[in-house]
Parts: sequence; C-alpha cells; structure tokens
Amino acid sequence: MVKAVFDELEGERPKRHFTVGIKDDVTHLSLDYDMELDIEPDSVDRAVFFGLGSDGTVGANKNSLKIIAEETGKRVQGYFVYDSKKAGAVTVSHLRSADSALRSSYLIASAKFVACHSFPLLDRYDVLEYAAPGGVFLLNAPFGPDAIWEALSRESQTTIVEKNLRFFTIDAYEVAKEAGLRGRINTIMQTCFFAISGMIEPDLAIAKIKAAIEKSYGKMGSEVVQRNFAAVDHALAHLHEVAHPGQVTATHGRPPIVAEGAGEFIERVTAVMMAGRGDLLPVSAFPADGTWPTGTGKWEKPNIAMEIPVWDPDICVQCNLCTFVCPHAAIRAKVVEPETLAEAPQTFLSADPRSKELSGLRYLLQVAPEDCTGCTLCVVVCPAKDKGNPRHKAVDMAPQAPIREPERENYEFFLSLPEVDPARFKKIDVRTSQFLQPLFESSGACSGCGETPYIKLMTQLFGDRLLIANATGCSSIYGGNLPTTPYTTNTAGRGPAWSNSLFEDNAEFGLGFRLSIDAQREHARGLIERLRTEVGEELAAVLLDTEKLEAAGLDTARERVAELRKRLATMEDPRARELDSVSDYLVPKSVWLVGGDGWAYDIGYGGLDHVMSMTRNVNALVLDTEVYSNTGGQQSKATPLGAAAKFAAAGKSIGKKDLGMEMMSYGHVYVARVAFGARPSQTLQAFQEAESYPGPSIILAYSHCIAHGYDLSHGTEQQKLAVECGQWPLYRFDPRRVEQGLPPLALDSKAPKGRVRDYMKNEARFRMVEKIDPVRFRHLQKQADREARERFAVYEQLAGLTIPRRVEEEEEGA
Amino acid sequence: MVKAVFDELEGERPKRHFTVGIKDDVTHLSLDYDMELDIEPDSVDRAVFFGLGSDGTVGANKNSLKIIAEETGKRVQGYFVYDSKKAGAVTVSHLRSADSALRSSYLIASAKFVACHSFPLLDRYDVLEYAAPGGVFLLNAPFGPDAIWEALSRESQTTIVEKNLRFFTIDAYEVAKEAGLRGRINTIMQTCFFAISGMIEPDLAIAKIKAAIEKSYGKMGSEVVQRNFAAVDHALAHLHEVAHPGQVTATHGRPPIVAEGAGEFIERVTAVMMAGRGDLLPVSAFPADGTWPTGTGKWEKPNIAMEIPVWDPDICVQCNLCTFVCPHAAIRAKVVEPETLAEAPQTFLSADPRSKELSGLRYLLQVAPEDCTGCTLCVVVCPAKDKGNPRHKAVDMAPQAPIREPERENYEFFLSLPEVDPARFKKIDVRTSQFLQPLFESSGACSGCGETPYIKLMTQLFGDRLLIANATGCSSIYGGNLPTTPYTTNTAGRGPAWSNSLFEDNAEFGLGFRLSIDAQREHARGLIERLRTEVGEELAAVLLDTEKLEAAGLDTARERVAELRKRLATMEDPRARELDSVSDYLVPKSVWLVGGDGWAYDIGYGGLDHVMSMTRNVNALVLDTEVYSNTGGQQSKATPLGAAAKFAAAGKSIGKKDLGMEMMSYGHVYVARVAFGARPSQTLQAFQEAESYPGPSIILAYSHCIAHGYDLSHGTEQQKLAVECGQWPLYRFDPRRVEQGLPPLALDSKAPKGRVRDYMKNEARFRMVEKIDPVRFRHLQKQADREARERFAVYEQLAGLTIPRRVEEEEEGA
Repeated sequence: MVKAVFDELEGERPKRHFTVGIKDDVTHLSLDYDMELDIEPDSVDRAVFFGLGSDGTVGANKNSLKIIAEETGKRVQGYFVYDSKKAGAVTVSHLRSADSALRSSYLIASAKFVACHSFPLLDRYDVLEYAAPGGVFLLNAPFGPDAIWEALSRESQTTIVEKNLRFFTIDAYEVAKEAGLRGRINTIMQTCFFAISGMIEPDLAIAKIKAAIEKSYGKMGSEVVQRNFAAVDHALAHLHEVAHPGQVTATHGRPPIVAEGAGEFIERVTAVMMAGRGDLLPVSAFPADGTWPTGTGKWEKPNIAMEIPVWDPDICVQCNLCTFVCPHAAIRAKVVEPETLAEAPQTFLSADPRSKELSGLRYLLQVAPEDCTGCTLCVVVCPAKDKGNPRHKAVDMAPQAPIREPERENYEFFLSLPEVDPARFKKIDVRTSQFLQPLFESSGACSGCGETPYIKLMTQLFGDRLLIANATGCSSIYGGNLPTTPYTTNTAGRGPAWSNSLFEDNAEFGLGFRLSIDAQREHARGLIERLRTEVGEELAAVLLDTEKLEAAGLDTARERVAELRKRLATMEDPRARELDSVSDYLVPKSVWLVGGDGWAYDIGYGGLDHVMSMTRNVNALVLDTEVYSNTGGQQSKATPLGAAAKFAAAGKSIGKKDLGMEMMSYGHVYVARVAFGARPSQTLQAFQEAESYPGPSIILAYSHCIAHGYDLSHGTEQQKLAVECGQWPLYRFDPRRVEQGLPPLALDSKAPKGRVRDYMKNEARFRMVEKIDPVRFRHLQKQADREARERFAVYEQLAGLTIPRRVEEEEEGA
Repeated sequence: MVKAVFDELEGERPKRHFTVGIKDDVTHLSLDYDMELDIEPDSVDRAVFFGLGSDGTVGANKNSLKIIAEETGKRVQGYFVYDSKKAGAVTVSHLRSADSALRSSYLIASAKFVACHSFPLLDRYDVLEYAAPGGVFLLNAPFGPDAIWEALSRESQTTIVEKNLRFFTIDAYEVAKEAGLRGRINTIMQTCFFAISGMIEPDLAIAKIKAAIEKSYGKMGSEVVQRNFAAVDHALAHLHEVAHPGQVTATHGRPPIVAEGAGEFIERVTAVMMAGRGDLLPVSAFPADGTWPTGTGKWEKPNIAMEIPVWDPDICVQCNLCTFVCPHAAIRAKVVEPETLAEAPQTFLSADPRSKELSGLRYLLQVAPEDCTGCTLCVVVCPAKDKGNPRHKAVDMAPQAPIREPERENYEFFLSLPEVDPARFKKIDVRTSQFLQPLFESSGACSGCGETPYIKLMTQLFGDRLLIANATGCSSIYGGNLPTTPYTTNTAGRGPAWSNSLFEDNAEFGLGFRLSIDAQREHARGLIERLRTEVGEELAAVLLDTEKLEAAGLDTARERVAELRKRLATMEDPRARELDSVSDYLVPKSVWLVGGDGWAYDIGYGGLDHVMSMTRNVNALVLDTEVYSNTGGQQSKATPLGAAAKFAAAGKSIGKKDLGMEMMSYGHVYVARVAFGARPSQTLQAFQEAESYPGPSIILAYSHCIAHGYDLSHGTEQQKLAVECGQWPLYRFDPRRVEQGLPPLALDSKAPKGRVRDYMKNEARFRMVEKIDPVRFRHLQKQADREARERFAVYEQLAGLTIPRRVEEEEEGA
C-alpha cells in the first residue's frame, strides 16, 4: 500500500506541499484537497529563508519584520519552522508583509523571495520549490559568481531556468571572516535580503540594521559595533547577481537523501521526513504499532567538524580513554585478526596490541569523520605524548576537509570488520569496554556533550538486552527525534529497545517494562512446567533454573531458548504457540530509566522515588546537568548553590538536593555517584554493579553541559575539579555489602581538597551571579565550600558505620 | 432570593425528593420537573433502610439481596447512600426486586417496606416519607410495643396514620445484648425484614441467614455461631406489631435540626443538608465564592459515648495532660476570675489553681458530654491517683446517660466564661497551652483518633492567624465534610481559614496561600510607602518595620492596622481604598500544609519535596498513620517494615521511608519528629519552633489509628513504646542552631531500649503478618530491630557533627 501511494505521489508531484493536509488512507476520514489552490492575493509580499539551526537566521528575520512594520506601516507576519534537534537542524522562516491585514494562517507556498543561507541545504531540501515564477533567489555559497552555476545540481538549475528566477549569490562566511565575525552571517544575509527583495527601501532598512547593531552590541564596545557595520557594508560589495546561461548545464543530480539499499521503510518513509516532506506521507505509511526501526541515525550524519582527531599508532598507549569519553562514538577501537585487514584501504592504520592478552591480533583506532563534531575531548584526555614533541599526542586534531573522503572509506572498512567476542577478555574494564560495539551512534547531541558518553557506555555493556524508558529532555531529543534514532543494532540484529515517555511518569513507565517482562517470564515458566514432557525434561529443567541460566550467560540462555523454540515448532499443542510467543522473556533483560535532573529531581521525582522504594530490578540513570538543559535553562533542585540558569539569573541560594542520600536512606537501593571524566573506572564499575544488583539501582552521573557556560573541551577537567573540591563526591552504595558485614557505602573520592570556589570560577553559570551581586556571591561561595565539606563528613561517617555487622553479631548471640 | 425559594419549597413540600434534579435558579439552565412523576410499576418490590454508619445495615442488605436472588430467581438491585464521615454517619439502603429486569437507575421514592435501625434517626431524617401508603414500617427502638407510640413525634404519628402503615417494633440492642453480640444488630434486623416484608418466604430466608452465619463465623468457633443463631431466633420472639390508636396523640413535634438562632445561613442551608435534603437546595442557596461559615461542627454533635470522664478536683494535679491528648476537645481546662462563677449551675465544679502564677483565679476542667466519644485516653494519661484508692484517678469514666443533661448545662456555662489572655502566662508549655481555646471541636474523627490532638494543638497555638491547606485524607473528611466543619472561631471572631485540595497538589496549594499573602503584604507596604504623608509618618514607619511589628505581637500589629484603617476611611484617594483592602496582610499569618502519610510520602511527595526545597515560610504537618487510613488501608511508603495493611496483607518487606532524613538533607528545612503520647512537651516545642522558623518546616507526627488494629485507649502507651524501642525516634532539626555553632539536629529520645518486636506484637497490623508466615515474620522482626538501631546510630552521628562550627572558624581565619 505504501509503495503504491508513493508511486502515485511521485507521478503527481505536489507543488505546494506545505499547505496540504494529511491524507488518511486508513480510515479514509480526511478530505481531499486541491494542491494547486492558492487564494493569497499577489499584493502580499512573501519571502522564505532556509537557515541552519543557531546560525541566527530566525532572529534576523524577526528583526526584519520589525523594521518593515515600523518603517512602512505594513502588516507583517512570520512563521518559523524548526525541530528540536541539538545540532544540524534546519530552520525555515516564512515572512509576509502587506498593506492590509494578513489572514493567511498557513505557511507560504510561493514566495517572491527565497534565500538559502547554507549551500548544502540546497541539496537536502527542495528550497527552490518555494520560489514564485520571476522571483528572486539568494544563495550563500563558498563559490564566486562565476563558479556557482556549475556547482548547482541539475534540479536546481532546471527550476531556476524554468521559473526564470533572478539569482544572487554571496560568500557570507568569507565576508563574516573578513569582518572578524567568526561565522555569524545573519546580519550579512539580512542586508542582502533588504538590498534585493524589494520589500522595503534598501537604504532605510540598512540604517535600521545599523541602529539595531548599535543597540545590541553597544555595551560590548565600539569595536564590536564597527565590525558589524563593516559586515553590512561588505555584504553589499560581495553580493552578486549571477549571469547564468539560461539553460541546464549541470552534469550531476541531487544526491539521494539516504544511500541506496537503506531499506524500503527508510527510503520510503524516513527519507521523506528527513527531506522535510513528512506531511506528504499518507497515514498508511506509518507503523501501525508505533514501532520504528533503529539504526537510522547514521543517515543523518551531523558532519559539522572543521577539525577531527588523527591517530598516531606509534605513540598510542591503547588505553582507549579517547573512545570512552567520546560523546558521539566517533572514535572507536577494535581488535581484529590480521588477515581481516588484507583488503584495507590504503590509508587505514593499525598497530600491534600492547596488551599480552590480545597478542596476535591487530589494534585499530578509527575516526568517523562525519560523526565527529570536533569537540576535542579525546585529545584532552589522551595521556600519550610524543616525548620529542610534547604538543603532539597519540590523537591530535587536524582539518577535516582534506582527510574526510579517505577517512570515510577507512571508517566504512572499520565497520565491516568483525566485532570481538566479549568473552575474549578476562575482564571488562575501561580499556576492554571500548572494544565492545557502541549501539548509540551519530546522535544529534551537542558537540562535547557530557551525557552521551554514559549512554554509549550503557549500550556497550548491556546493549543486546537493554530496554530504555527515556524521560523527556535532551536525551529524548538526541535519543529519538523522529524520524531517526542513534540507537542501533549489533551484527546479530540485537540492540536497545527505546521509548520516550513524559517528564512526570518516566519511572513508572519503565517500571511497566519490568513488570511486563517479569509477568511474561513467569507465564513462560508456567507453560514450560505444563509442557515439561513435550519440551523434554532436561531442557525444561535448565530453562526453569533461572539462577543457573543467568549465571551461564546470555549466549547460553539464548541458545537454550532457540532450542526450545525449535522443539515448539514441531508441536501441535496451542500452548506451544503461546510459549513460543513469550519464550524470549526467559533471556535476561536490562531495564533502564534514563532522564535528566529535571526529571529525576523535580517533575518525575515522586514517581522515581516510588519506583525506587519498591524491590523490582530496574536501573535509573540520571544525566545530571544541574539545570533544565533542553528547554533552555530553568533551575532544578539539582542546580547547585550559587549557580544561575538562563531563566533564574539571580543564582541559587539553596544547595543541591542530595538525591543520592535520599535513595541511600532506603537501604535496599543501589546508589552510585559518578563522573566519567574524573574516574572512568569508577563509572564503569558503577554501571556493572547497578546492572548486576537484583533490586532497584540509581546512578547519578555528572554531565557537563553547554548550559554551564564554558568551552566543553574542558569538560573532563571540570569533572576532575568537581570531584576534588567535594562538589561532586564519588561513591557507590551497594546493599549487598551488608551481607559481608561491611557498610554499604564505599567512598570513591577523597576528602575535599582545594575550594569549590575555584571550580565555580571556571563556569559562566557561577560567574554571572558574581557579576550581579559580588558580595552575595562571596557569601554563596563560602557556603558552597562549607557545605561540600559538611556533606563529605556525613558521607565519611556513613561509610565508616560498622553497625550492620555489630548488630548481626549481637543477633547471632541473641 | 434564598429565603423566597425556601418559603416556596415549604409551601409545596416535595414528596419524592430523591428523584428530583437540581434547580438552577442562577443560570436558569435546569429543566423543570414533576415531583409526583412515578413510572415504576407496582410489581417491583421496594424497601428502604436507615442505618447508622458501621452498624452492619449495608452489609446485611447486600446479603439479603443475594438471598432473594438465589432463592427466588428474581432480579435484584441495591443502591446505598452514605457519606464519608468517620463517626455518626447515616446510611440509606434502597433495595428493589422484581420478576423482570430492573431499569430504575435512581433511588426509591415510595417503598412497601421501610426500616429505621436507630431510633434517633427518626427525628433527624424524614424516614417515613419513603413509605408507600399501606406499607410496612419497622423500627428499632428501646421501648416496648406499648410505649413506642407515645415516644414518636407528632410528624411520625401523622404519617403512620395518614399512610395507614403497618408498624412493627423491636428492641434490637436488647436482643443483641441477650445473645452476647455487643451491639451488632444487623442480623437481627435482617431477620425481622424477612419476617414481615413479604419479599421472600420467611422460613427459607431464615435458613439462608443461618447458612451465611455458619459460613462467616464458622472459623471463630461454634459458640459464636450459636450466639448468632440465638439472635435470629430471639429476633422473631421480640418483634411486635404495634397496635396504635389510629390517630395522632403526640404532644411533641420533631426537634429542629439545628437550634433556633444558629443564623440564617445555617438554618436555611446547612440544616437542610444535614437533614439529607441537600438536593432540594436551589443553586442560589450556595455561597458564590465557595466560602462556608466555620464553627458549624457543633450542630452535629456525635453524642456516641456510653461513658464519659468525670473530674475529681480534689486529687487533680492540674497538669492538663487529659485535655492535651483529647482527640475531640471534649475535655477542656480554663482559668477564670472567681466572680464569673456566681451564676454557675449547681453541679459545676472548680478548684483553686495549684500554680502560683494563677493564684486568685479558679481552675476549671469541663467535659463536653456530647462531643466526648468515650475513648478514655484522658483517663489513661491522668497521673493523679487517689492515694487511698489507686483505681480512682482525677478523671474516671462514668456512664453518660445520668449526667448528660447537667453536664451539657455545665459545658454551656463553661463556654460562656471568658477566655484567658495568653499573655497572662510566663510561658506556653503543655499545661498552659491547654488554657488556650481550641478552635477545632466536635469533629467526626474516630474515637481515640491519634491525629486530631495535633490539629487541636495547632489551633490553640496559632488559631487566630492560621491558614490550612489540607490534603485529601482522614483530616479532610473530619476537617471539612460539607455542610459542617469543626474549625471554629474565638470570641473575637477569628479562627483558621481552611481548604482542602487534592492528594497530589496540596503542598503547592498551600504554597499558593503563602505566595499570595506575601504578595499582598508587599503590595500593602508599597502603598504605605506612597501614602506615607497621608497615613502619618510615624504610623507608616511602625507598619513598615516588619521585624519590630512581628516582635511586638499579634495584638499590637492588629491595633496598628486598625488605626491605619481608621485613617484610611477618612481619605478620598482611591489608593486608600486599595490599601484598606490589603491592610490585613500586614498582620503575620501562619500557613500550614496538613495531610497524612499517603499525601506526604507518596502521592503528594513530589510537590511537598519541591515546596520544602524552596525558602518560603510554610509549615507542613504530616499526620503519619503509616497507612492510607481514609480509603481503608493501602500500604504507603510510610508503612513500617513487617506491617500489613488491609489491601496489602503480606506485610511490608521494605523499611519505612525516612522522610525526615530526606528533609534534613536540604539543610535549610526545620524538621521534627514527634509523638504527643510519648513526649507532649517535645511535641509542643516542635510546633512552636516550626512556626517561628522563617523558612519551610515539617513535623512528622506519630498518629495511632484504628487501622493499626488495637484498642486505641492504649494509643499513648503504644506511642511511648514506639519511641523507646527506636521505631519512632524523636528529634528536632533546627537550621537556626548552626548560627550558634551547634549541630542543627537535636535528638529528643534515647538510644533504643527494648525491642521493636515487643512494640509490634501489640498491633494486629503486625500480628496478621506473623499469622500468614511466622518464619518470614521472625526475619522481618529481626530486621526491624536492626534497622531501628542503625537508624538511631546515624542520627546520633549527625547530632554529634561539629563540622559547621569547625568550618565557620576556619572561614574566619581564612
């Protein structure tokens, strides 16, 4: 059905797809519509702009509307279309102005002016579809007016010629660079818009732009103002109308949205949504049960790094710290048999392993050049320096452009090599964990994100049996922003199952996963009991001995279940069909509740607390950025003393809620506080212990964040400072230790050394508070230092408690 | 408008008020209806029963329906009408049976059989209105068949005569007593129903009743079964048809629902609802803003005690412990000038005060005979024994009936005496606090309730400035069960403002009180600033100096505000009107968030936690019964290890959530854990400190409860045990102590002595668990003992922490 609909769509390509409604070909309750209908009078000026998320296009357009309204008295209207992606998102601005009231409460389909502020967007979206015949098209591109025509695809050239568009181009990034504006092109493009759109007298508009610059940047000093003035003036000098041949000369077409062979669903549904044409999909195109394929993130490569890491195998110590901290799984390690490298591309690198355990194999470290966002965390943590040149490390940053193509080929080859069997390693530690395939890749998380390394690690350790209930927040955005998800599968086709619920019920939602798994497992066990003879006494016994089955490992459990299903397939009994349908639940699953501090400390706290108070085996991962990051910066109960948030600028006067202590006070909850950048081995241990603990577990994970206000390449260094000064003590509270007569709390960091204030001064979220009221801030700093030490003293006392053993002994004697 | 409607209603007295709809005389959107319309065929057998809450009437009627359906094959239907009151509630059962399907989805208006299971109900409700002409009326009354007619009111006699009812009577309590069934009359009345209603062959029905008895009580032994069998047989022997004179002979009419002079609103609205005729009230009868008068609980006296306390002034030590622990403010102390007693009733008692502070006055201790529920807590706590006769205390229980009338008169006289000025006392301690007027009286709380003594104390201490946000639960039921409320006002007309919100938002709801008070106060202050000259410089200065104003005390603040309003009244400026409307907010208010553990630990916990994490001055009172008492017994996170609940019979395997510890971990929250029965002085101190603390405060209050499964006359003894064994450690965590270099936590109870298991064995909630699985229970007991000691050890360490001072000193040096 889907295919038929698409063939039809392709035959009859809609011209104004943004104004159509949804076609419901399942219930047939939608009304038909005429795609050509256009009742908007020509007197309405219309302009459409394609920009990159956070390039300033939307803000500049809002300012343009203001200028038009104020200077001409016209009515204006703006619609801004964008999604919730963290990086690599597109924005589409729809601007109207007219002498009379604007009553078009829909997007623009045909515009007299169309601008594309980023050259690659022209190939990803059908930008020129929006252009009215005889309209104006403005393109920002890194080519001169003479070379630009040949850089266009056949489709773009065809539309320009057929619609007889006037075509202007500017290399805005070059202009910005000359003016010292480091990639800020919004004012430049705005100037060009006013110069050629005819929507307002250009000189008047430019005077207003300059006035706005004066107002916005005046307090930053006259130099900044002058730089922006220069950008405006240069813009006009570098804006060129393209004298094109008036006929299609291109030899290349637009590349497909996804590569051929991605699979029917991805090509027919996912790709359509990626192209911004999801509204065109009929209802039948969507999965009836809401299940979407995983492993689709890779079709949306961010490809935003100017520089990427380059490996020097000669000095590398193969610690794999670089891959451990990488937020995008963009630098990966592998060990392979040497013969698998026979067909390796020319520039593909490998080394002899330094570990004896791996001798005979080859060690690989490979960058995914289009996944890397250039955050440099890998370089910062790399401990291997060239003795001759201390500025040269085993991974160094280098410009991406020259090596992008060969590295893409190398990365593809790397992916094609077999994955190592985890059983190959004596122990999964920081180093060996990084030989395990991450099942989270090409996410849209921010460059340098402090959350994703935890999620990636979770997928490396438990990915083949993982179910994730994800609270709303950053992790739900980069984790499953329709139509793609970074969660993917291993070569056996297994990977995490993931779903997003509300802020306020995510813990309960995930508990539901556990309850249903447990219920289905019990159901399966009951059926085996009843079908003992038919299934075979021996196999039944093995499957019913849960403890042994779990101890034997996942592969064994899966083999046993496979054997069971083979036998069931030959049986007539309807109970055999039923058992077959639930048999997968005999294999252990790992349920994780994932979310940020807004979820865990605030909005979902009541539910999280309740789920933790129960005894079911669920694991909570709290990605603690200490602020509502996704919504732009509201203070949460996790926000530390003295920190400002975008929407709570005064700075918090109450200390961070001690969620870990609250959870520990239950006694039966596994609790860990970790910081991957400070002590990766402790982080790893906490994940392993939490998962193996048969009751509720919670991991509080320090997550540096752009909201903290510093260059995240220093993220791991700040993590170290946070731990050292007592702002973020590391510990693991394991109720199992009581059985050994030990206090359950083990402190993994030492008593505070240095001052919290030194940690605070590195982050703008604290410095902002100082700026507002230095006296109050000094008081808050003092308080922060005191509270850190007080808290640590309490932990130390709890960690030293020998009560459990003492009482046990007394009991024995009683 | 209301009056007119009532005059109209009275003229045209509706016959079938249970079937009518609401008359909306405000929007006029309701439809008119014919009160006489009755489309139910005569072939439907209909019976209506009036019973007392928890007298077993509803259960017996459900059983009767089952018997009729099973034995006759008829269709049956039952509607049961009752409210949420804890004590003194009425139940109305509407039973139908017929050969064909019953489609009457409304209550019965005209029944062939009407029963009244409690004689006093006949005067409170229009029971006979439900009787169809020629029907049968059954009355349980403590009179013989010869005396009963004269005991009826004129109205009852008139209806019996006019409707020509067959009238039967039985003294069911006497029958129950003879059969050894202690007040359980349900089976007796059920037997009579079958014997005379004609709805089923009596012998058949009685055989089935006996079979049901066998089934219900069989496991309790044959004696219990035989006793119930005897009750059935005696019932028939004691059931008499009344041969009445066929004309009205009564000289007394039905008493009014409320006394004359209660006020127009109470007489015209409250009383109508109390009579069960609230559906007759037109919309205009209700307060437009939802505000209801307080002080209305007194019109619904429970009057359920068989015995009440009697005071012996000669041996009384005047400690006032009896009044402190009384759940119903039914025993009260006062000190008055001797001359005020000149007109005292004959039996009114008084004594010379034992305290020198009060010399010259007279000490009074008075029982409210109709408010007392006979719980005996006052007698249990009384420390004053007669040396000659140790079984005689300063308060002893004595039968109510003989002393009810004189004590009612004495109580009315007691209430008429002036209240003492609190400033008269050097200090408000347990003893003097009980001279303060409780502003919570005649509540419908259970006899022996462990919650209400805290609420009563709160009203004694802060009643004239109290705003209560009450979460749903027992406290919202006995606190404000429309149409009455036990919250009342003092002689100045001031008392608590009270409102009930949801389980899930009560803390936020109460925070809203605080925010709006604070905002209005700021608004008032702003207006004073602007009207300084007009108001008078001196008065303005006094009113703006909040700290001084608060320190000067409530009366002074109120006088200043009164002076302000006097001056404002003479001013033309519209700002003066505005200031007048908010001037009351210049007087300090006390905001309390009240609720049970279901609210604080579970459903409202997320919100409570958030409100406590803020810095606003609100006080939370958690009435911790360790179970959802109001809804019948669901386990909460406050339920202790090893306790069963009605709907969680297995017994809790996880310890009680340590809410106090969680709140203490914030550092800025005042936290106290109290048990009024164990250490009243500590309870009082905690309330005083919580209220005076200028930030958020929370009091966790041990509340014994019928759900714990023991005779609540032992409530205070169990509280003592709970504290001694470490099950309920007492403490006060006051952040203000840090300023004095002290640890904020002060432990008010000693290290556990004795065993938690000894505390557990007194309560059925624990014993039930033992019964189900004795081995597991022993393990839980052991664990409970261990956890109590561990917890105490942690508290001890926290209480001994000297970190704050140490760090402060270091800071000074730094």
